Amino acid sequence: MSDQRTAPVPAFEPPYYAVVFTSTRTEDQSGYGETAERMEELVKGVPGYLGMDHAQTPGGLAITVGYFRDADALERWRSDTEHRSAQKRGRAEWYRSYSLHVAKVERSHGFVREEEGTLPT
Amino acid sequence: MSDQRTAPVPAFEPPYYAVVFTSTRTEDQSGYGETAERMEELVKGVPGYLGMDHAQTPGGLAITVGYFRDADALERWRSDTEHRSAQKRGRAEWYRSYSLHVAKVERSHGFVREEEGTLPT
Repeated sequence: MSDQRTAPVPAFEPPYYAVVFTSTRTEDQSGYGETAERMEELVKGVPGYLGMDHAQTPGGLAITVGYFRDADALERWRSDTEHRSAQKRGRAEWYRSYSLHVAKVERSHGFVREEEGTLPT
Repeated sequence: MSDQRTAPVPAFEPPYYAVVFTSTRTEDQSGYGETAERMEELVKGVPGYLGMDHAQTPGGLAITVGYFRDADALERWRSDTEHRSAQKRGRAEWYRSYSLHVAKVERSHGFVREEEGTLPT
């Protein structure tokens, strides 16, 4: 997942879903990078996928938040065969620990500084 | 906010709330660090506060996810006078852009590798 994009995913009109995935990883990360890239490509093709924020601490805690329009979009991503297979490999090889919080957004709010309003986003 | 802790906040029994705050900041960050530390201290005193995950990209996108037991806990934190004053200063000085997603967790799941089950957490 790219760390280059600096603007956060915007706030959408509720309701929508936020899927918070927090993790720490093991020593052996062979194959992880390719799989993460493939998952990012795949999820973009899910109807109702809205975007993703990702960041990681120097200590190795990674946070990924995926945004989805509705429960159908979530379910499409959740039941994707290739995604399921990647999750299985993640538990077997890549993750030391993770937490998944699937949550329905009830309230949202966005802020962009006025002097930047004319910049391309 | 400390980047030292590596274990993610665990998954709790739903329902509970996840508050996703994603942001980029301005050049002038005077006073930000002290205020962020003070807010972290304050939120820990809110009844129903469950924990916080935080990470930041090299490009400057910060993600903070706060977990709260229920809407009352959220409301206590939301209406805290010192917190409100910090938010106001944040919009005036520290944030270039931010998104806030207040979401009710409907489903959660945690994973910890078995070989680490005996380590202190």
